[in-house]
Amino acid sequence: MTNSFAARLPQPPMKWDAWGDPESAAPLSDSMSTLIRGMLGVDAEPAAPREPADVELSPSRLTAADIDALSGIVGPEWVSADDADRLPRAGGKSTLDLLRRRRAGQDAPDAVVLPADTGEVAAILEWCSANGVAVVPFGGGTSVVGGLDPLAGPLRAVISVDLRRLDALIALDEVSGIATLGAGMTGPAAEAALAERGFSLGHFPQSFRFATIGGFAVTRSSGQASAGYGRFDDMVIDLTLVSPAGVLTVGRAQKSAAGPDLRQLIMGSEGTFGIVTAVSVRVHRLPATTGYEAWRFDSFAAAATAFRTLAQEGVMPTVLRVSDEAETALNLARPSEIGEANSDDALPAGGCLAITTFEGSPTAVAARMSVTREIFTAAGGLSGGEGPARSWEHGRFNAPYLRDALLDIGVGCETLETATVWSKVDAVKAAVTTALTSALPEPTVVMCHISHTYAAGASLYFTVVYRQEGDPIAQWSAAKTAASQAMSDAGASITHHHAVGVDHKPWLIAEDGELGIAALAAVKRVFDPAGVCNPGKLI
Amino acid sequence: MTNSFAARLPQPPMKWDAWGDPESAAPLSDSMSTLIRGMLGVDAEPAAPREPADVELSPSRLTAADIDALSGIVGPEWVSADDADRLPRAGGKSTLDLLRRRRAGQDAPDAVVLPADTGEVAAILEWCSANGVAVVPFGGGTSVVGGLDPLAGPLRAVISVDLRRLDALIALDEVSGIATLGAGMTGPAAEAALAERGFSLGHFPQSFRFATIGGFAVTRSSGQASAGYGRFDDMVIDLTLVSPAGVLTVGRAQKSAAGPDLRQLIMGSEGTFGIVTAVSVRVHRLPATTGYEAWRFDSFAAAATAFRTLAQEGVMPTVLRVSDEAETALNLARPSEIGEANSDDALPAGGCLAITTFEGSPTAVAARMSVTREIFTAAGGLSGGEGPARSWEHGRFNAPYLRDALLDIGVGCETLETATVWSKVDAVKAAVTTALTSALPEPTVVMCHISHTYAAGASLYFTVVYRQEGDPIAQWSAAKTAASQAMSDAGASITHHHAVGVDHKPWLIAEDGELGIAALAAVKRVFDPAGVCNPGKLI
Repeated sequence: MTNSFAARLPQPPMKWDAWGDPESAAPLSDSMSTLIRGMLGVDAEPAAPREPADVELSPSRLTAADIDALSGIVGPEWVSADDADRLPRAGGKSTLDLLRRRRAGQDAPDAVVLPADTGEVAAILEWCSANGVAVVPFGGGTSVVGGLDPLAGPLRAVISVDLRRLDALIALDEVSGIATLGAGMTGPAAEAALAERGFSLGHFPQSFRFATIGGFAVTRSSGQASAGYGRFDDMVIDLTLVSPAGVLTVGRAQKSAAGPDLRQLIMGSEGTFGIVTAVSVRVHRLPATTGYEAWRFDSFAAAATAFRTLAQEGVMPTVLRVSDEAETALNLARPSEIGEANSDDALPAGGCLAITTFEGSPTAVAARMSVTREIFTAAGGLSGGEGPARSWEHGRFNAPYLRDALLDIGVGCETLETATVWSKVDAVKAAVTTALTSALPEPTVVMCHISHTYAAGASLYFTVVYRQEGDPIAQWSAAKTAASQAMSDAGASITHHHAVGVDHKPWLIAEDGELGIAALAAVKRVFDPAGVCNPGKLI
Repeated sequence: MTNSFAARLPQPPMKWDAWGDPESAAPLSDSMSTLIRGMLGVDAEPAAPREPADVELSPSRLTAADIDALSGIVGPEWVSADDADRLPRAGGKSTLDLLRRRRAGQDAPDAVVLPADTGEVAAILEWCSANGVAVVPFGGGTSVVGGLDPLAGPLRAVISVDLRRLDALIALDEVSGIATLGAGMTGPAAEAALAERGFSLGHFPQSFRFATIGGFAVTRSSGQASAGYGRFDDMVIDLTLVSPAGVLTVGRAQKSAAGPDLRQLIMGSEGTFGIVTAVSVRVHRLPATTGYEAWRFDSFAAAATAFRTLAQEGVMPTVLRVSDEAETALNLARPSEIGEANSDDALPAGGCLAITTFEGSPTAVAARMSVTREIFTAAGGLSGGEGPARSWEHGRFNAPYLRDALLDIGVGCETLETATVWSKVDAVKAAVTTALTSALPEPTVVMCHISHTYAAGASLYFTVVYRQEGDPIAQWSAAKTAASQAMSDAGASITHHHAVGVDHKPWLIAEDGELGIAALAAVKRVFDPAGVCNPGKLI
């Protein structure tokens, strides 16, 4: 009745207690270790590795008959109540999740089911609705907001529906530049399948190597090339939602005036309306040219002004990001070089490092670079050439691995993000920084960057590094609450691209109002009358 | 109890039986008249002008007590059951509307109410909900899909809530480039208020001179500068919906991942969830430079390929449009010159005329023009210099006046539009053209242009000119039905920017599915439990 299918999967889930691929995890470099230990006054020896055998999982509440019924839908080889399959799907990868993974006893989904197609997803949801079992959709397992917590709500059990078998490039309309992708395709799988046909999606969030197309859609993911290719919710042409009430495919054109945009209702629904099984997205031909240019600004304020002017002019780079003074000083934009001198830079020390890249035809790249150069130079920016931009690109998915190494020496590390309008950027940045430094032991390091820039505002992405004290879960929860409240009080959004899940839910009501939440709850009742879809998340 | 407030309004509604401002209406030029009469074989003398006195309006079903109650909310001077106030709000400006205005007996709202602010709008909706009276929100009165039909549904009466007193520039955040505008501001009023502060909204639909901010939002309007500044639904940062269940303001940042985007649920709701009273939109500084360039392509297919390549490259003009061969031959892009030789053109005759304009800094304009030139030249385009582009801009809001003059000589004229993906553009264009020519007498002229271009597809905007025969309402209804069915069958959206209203409602279910419509109906029940908000429209 139970079985471990890990060996049969093209890509197993991430390591159960850490980010990413165990092969890619790196110990702290000596320079990094010395820097952090000195800065925060930490002297703990690295913690011993944890083993799954040390963990006591909540026992599965499903009966043999339940497992048989699920096996009847997907085949017995794609259902498991084995601890080895349940543990890696016990949650996401927030610092809170990683701290929970260090506990002896843990909650986990009561079984893991891997459907092969939309029909099997529909049958699973039908069975769960009839049998009072909750469903947590599982893609890459990269949620950092509790979106994967195995909550049964008022129901008798909860299963993890892992979508990685829905991994096909279903269709490619080369003329329109639209690819229809299975929800379980990871970022690299999608790029590889598209590259074979000469196309690219261009969606590169930090979770890119693990996260999936369906997850990008239902969490409104935003990637590092958002300035050029848009956020994921801008890329979607149509999507298919399998809900307990039926299957719905919406979207006939990139833009339409045919009533409210149902795509924008399903995107951001985080599995609470059902499971997105396929998504059609804009893709582009692999670019002929890529231009790189790094810039140095004297201050974050000067860089923000330059970014604002550029976005309001409307001719954007493909990648556009700037680290504040603290993040630049720590060299966080290039994790492999943290704590090392910027040997390849032609720039004066200090200030703020900005990265731009430009993809497209040679004429378009030159045109876009000319606008950026004019605006950045006028705002006091100094060009640092290609080096730092190429270096950033090289290491851009590696930062999350550092957190695991830091946790092992008693150093907390987490990221938080928000979105606001330009006129509030300074106040929001200050309020969140103050909230974190007030809630955590001195000295706590708060760094910030802008990685998503719009005409009317930008995201602010914070990284906080602090000394763990007392109960690490309670310590971080208090700091996270303080930072979230500061964002909300300052009029910013509780999230720019990490979504809501469990962790941001208390602040959604301030943003959507009781009436807005009531509208979403009414939609949920239509799609999910039995309330089986990811209970306890979002609304 | 009744009174006519027309004289007290800064801008009265449009002429009751025709487009726009009576002062701007122009008789057909001799050349135009000769062309059309010869082309369609029409020899009717112009119809005599109609007078409001010739119309018998449905009598108001409201009682004196009702009028007193409404007067108690907005003041007696802002309530009217006078025919002179009801008649101009009896419907929109589709050809079907204009044909209906030529009938002796007509339905009209039972009263017209002009609230001063959000509080009065809320009180009106509360009173209507308690008293079984339907509400049709009224902005510029430019709907061409029946969105303003005075339908009471199952209720005992219907009032028109005219929002033109909500006409303030409420706030301007110059740093973020965000203006908060009253829903009743017309396009010109918004531009004038913003221009005083050095800003522009840049939303120029053909209805610009009359239509209002609230209408733009709830119908997902798209303007002629959409390539540069986006559709209206792209511009909105936040909006305030006054519903019978309460007031909701949503939107904290240009983009967010805080759940489903409620702005995109309210936009497109066409008054069925309540009344949008204020909208915050992206605005930009008045451009330093405007570049103009017209182009000639051998064929519509060649132009579409050039537009697609440009949009997929992602460096866009501000205005980007192309007329097909038929529209180019008739010179419809420049209404003042229809039927006249293109004397100022440096272009060979025939083919397809495309217009581009570029607004921004000199560097950005030059950069964007360089990309367009490279792509258009490679696609076989010939530059026609500035002349035709400036000429298009000069006459760009005047085309609707022609329709009234044509109707007066027995010539039907209407526009229809859709949105599709690039790979379907040819098939959709052919299907709609065939549907219209099959449903209408030979020879019927169907012209088409692309005025909104996206990476993955475009709008197709059709103008049809035909000889009226038999019952003109039945004749056009049959043709409109055939064209709508052709769009839907071809997989295109039933509307790119005209919205749904009554006329497109039968095809929305194919686009949103029964489940999608059920979700929208559930949202409506939350916002509008008594069902008073624009019944019979959209869902």
